[in-house]
Amino acid sequence: MSAYEERRKKLYDWMTAEGIAMVMFEDFEGRRDSAIRWMTGQPSDALLFLCAGGKSLLVPWDANMAAIYAQADAIIPYGEFDRDAINALRGAASLFKIPPGSRVEISPVTSYTGFLKYIEEAGDYDILCRNRGAHGEVESLRAVKDEEEQGIYRKAAAITNELIDLLEDKVTAGRLPTEIDVAFFIETECRKRGCEGTGFETLAAGAARSFGIHTFPAYTAEPFAGPGLSILDFGLKYRGYTTDVTLTFTRGPLSAAQEKMLALTEKAYAKALSLIRDGVSAREVSMAVDTVFGKGRKAMPHALGHGIGLEAHESPALRSRQDNTWQLLPGMIFTLEPGLYDPIHGGCRLENDILLTESGPEVLTNARIIRF
Amino acid sequence: MSAYEERRKKLYDWMTAEGIAMVMFEDFEGRRDSAIRWMTGQPSDALLFLCAGGKSLLVPWDANMAAIYAQADAIIPYGEFDRDAINALRGAASLFKIPPGSRVEISPVTSYTGFLKYIEEAGDYDILCRNRGAHGEVESLRAVKDEEEQGIYRKAAAITNELIDLLEDKVTAGRLPTEIDVAFFIETECRKRGCEGTGFETLAAGAARSFGIHTFPAYTAEPFAGPGLSILDFGLKYRGYTTDVTLTFTRGPLSAAQEKMLALTEKAYAKALSLIRDGVSAREVSMAVDTVFGKGRKAMPHALGHGIGLEAHESPALRSRQDNTWQLLPGMIFTLEPGLYDPIHGGCRLENDILLTESGPEVLTNARIIRF
Repeated sequence: MSAYEERRKKLYDWMTAEGIAMVMFEDFEGRRDSAIRWMTGQPSDALLFLCAGGKSLLVPWDANMAAIYAQADAIIPYGEFDRDAINALRGAASLFKIPPGSRVEISPVTSYTGFLKYIEEAGDYDILCRNRGAHGEVESLRAVKDEEEQGIYRKAAAITNELIDLLEDKVTAGRLPTEIDVAFFIETECRKRGCEGTGFETLAAGAARSFGIHTFPAYTAEPFAGPGLSILDFGLKYRGYTTDVTLTFTRGPLSAAQEKMLALTEKAYAKALSLIRDGVSAREVSMAVDTVFGKGRKAMPHALGHGIGLEAHESPALRSRQDNTWQLLPGMIFTLEPGLYDPIHGGCRLENDILLTESGPEVLTNARIIRF
Repeated sequence: MSAYEERRKKLYDWMTAEGIAMVMFEDFEGRRDSAIRWMTGQPSDALLFLCAGGKSLLVPWDANMAAIYAQADAIIPYGEFDRDAINALRGAASLFKIPPGSRVEISPVTSYTGFLKYIEEAGDYDILCRNRGAHGEVESLRAVKDEEEQGIYRKAAAITNELIDLLEDKVTAGRLPTEIDVAFFIETECRKRGCEGTGFETLAAGAARSFGIHTFPAYTAEPFAGPGLSILDFGLKYRGYTTDVTLTFTRGPLSAAQEKMLALTEKAYAKALSLIRDGVSAREVSMAVDTVFGKGRKAMPHALGHGIGLEAHESPALRSRQDNTWQLLPGMIFTLEPGLYDPIHGGCRLENDILLTESGPEVLTNARIIRF
């Protein structure tokens, strides 16, 4: 059984237990869902229907792409359904002989107005649109990486670490003087090593721009790693899975305020890592980090971290908001990325990718604060 | 009055006429909405509240970024609302003294489950979530580019055309031999000329991969513009606005099947352009193109075109689906991009950006099929 089939099998079992006849997934512009790649290999732009009987139908926008990458029991191009999702749902229900009245689940990100349209045009089925339904189940399944995925991540992390070392050498030697030089270096070198590209637009912010959490534009022709604090946030996409690390380059002499920001960030990172263990509440880890910053009379303007995988941001969430109920479990891969940002002194962030194993956290990447 | 204020003013007038007290816009990961950049200049990650009295509140994730780029009557960081959208909505309603029971409109892409949460937590207001409400109005307003935007597009198109000429020279001379060479050339040269970057990931597909509508991965270390048909689809982002063009490079000798695909694509493009005029139905133009391909016993697996602007895909839609009710109007800027794709013979697409003026279509870009 392929990894894709094993993943689908987990959902079929869940569907049977829950009495769901069919589930629909959507991966289109404006509502991306890597669940389809996770369960079939199709990299983008498709619908996927799973039937509790254990059959799958992929409806790709680009049938040629599906012929190369996708594995499903049936593949019918989207054009056959006039590129209309509800048409496709009706077609899938007919193919799978789903009786009227059956429970058919659609994506919880379906808009309110879109949902009304399903009720109108496919109301002979019992259409479900729920946060903690089939899509939530897949989100939870995806949060814990299986063996194949952990293997991919070890490789992706090894390439990322190789690039981190090269970046340290070249940046400190002045051989990548601008933000654009740094970003292109990563883009070229990762592809040479078999990556699909970067997992998101590289953020390279020289000292004049590092105050931005996600600097805008992502990189420019301005200097990188001049005097002060520079941030480099990047991820490599390998077989669909992205790493996500942030280096801070500091070039002295630094002000007392800058030194304090760096020290607090490293302290917060160490605190977070010390708390990572099987079963810990992600929110509690985040709140402990907030406390570290709070004691230094600072506040981090973003979350502590997030799961990574086929998407740069996925479950579990590591944030201190009250609605965060994630528990960290063995097999989860996530970032820890404390940071501070100041319009005058600039910004710093330290971000690594962590695999939680039965025996504790394994830091897959070796991003660091590089002083020179 | 700044262009941002003028744009907000149009919506205030509409809100007053429609009896809407407050409108909320959201631009976050998973639900991007450039309407906020259009009305304030804030490039990303924010909420925007407009009050019928003519006041605006921006709630940016990154307050430092807002201090540089954004213009609004009030700016309060998202963190002040615990980074929770409904909290922020309640805060804005309180700031603007919106009485309970007033009509408050939220984004039509709000999920069904999300909508239920608004009803629960902000049900003292009359929460509206509609396709043809305030957000639809902004979509329609944005589809017609104002003078400032047309000026930006003339400049963006000039840079795009400069690069097209350079690409023709360098590719046919063998100086950009791989897909990655072509993609990086565009990325570097556009930034040198003042662009923010590319408007979307450049799709560079050599002859072995051009059968894909949106090739995957976007570009690789494989050869570009070897014998057969190669596709290069790219856009430059200038002051937020993206162009979107596709060149096809053909290197002979070509098969009869390839020649037929090219001839049909050029015929379809000419047909489409000949029909563009003030008031024409976008769907009728698309159906005329479908007919051209149909007569050649081919079918185009995607839409004819789409509006461009702050997003690579925006209104109007140029497609033949029955639900397409867009009329083309002066000031609209959109692509025409007929194409054909074959797993054996490869693919071809010709795509240019058109500004519809009172006197007819003006082709802003000069993408073409380049035979060598």
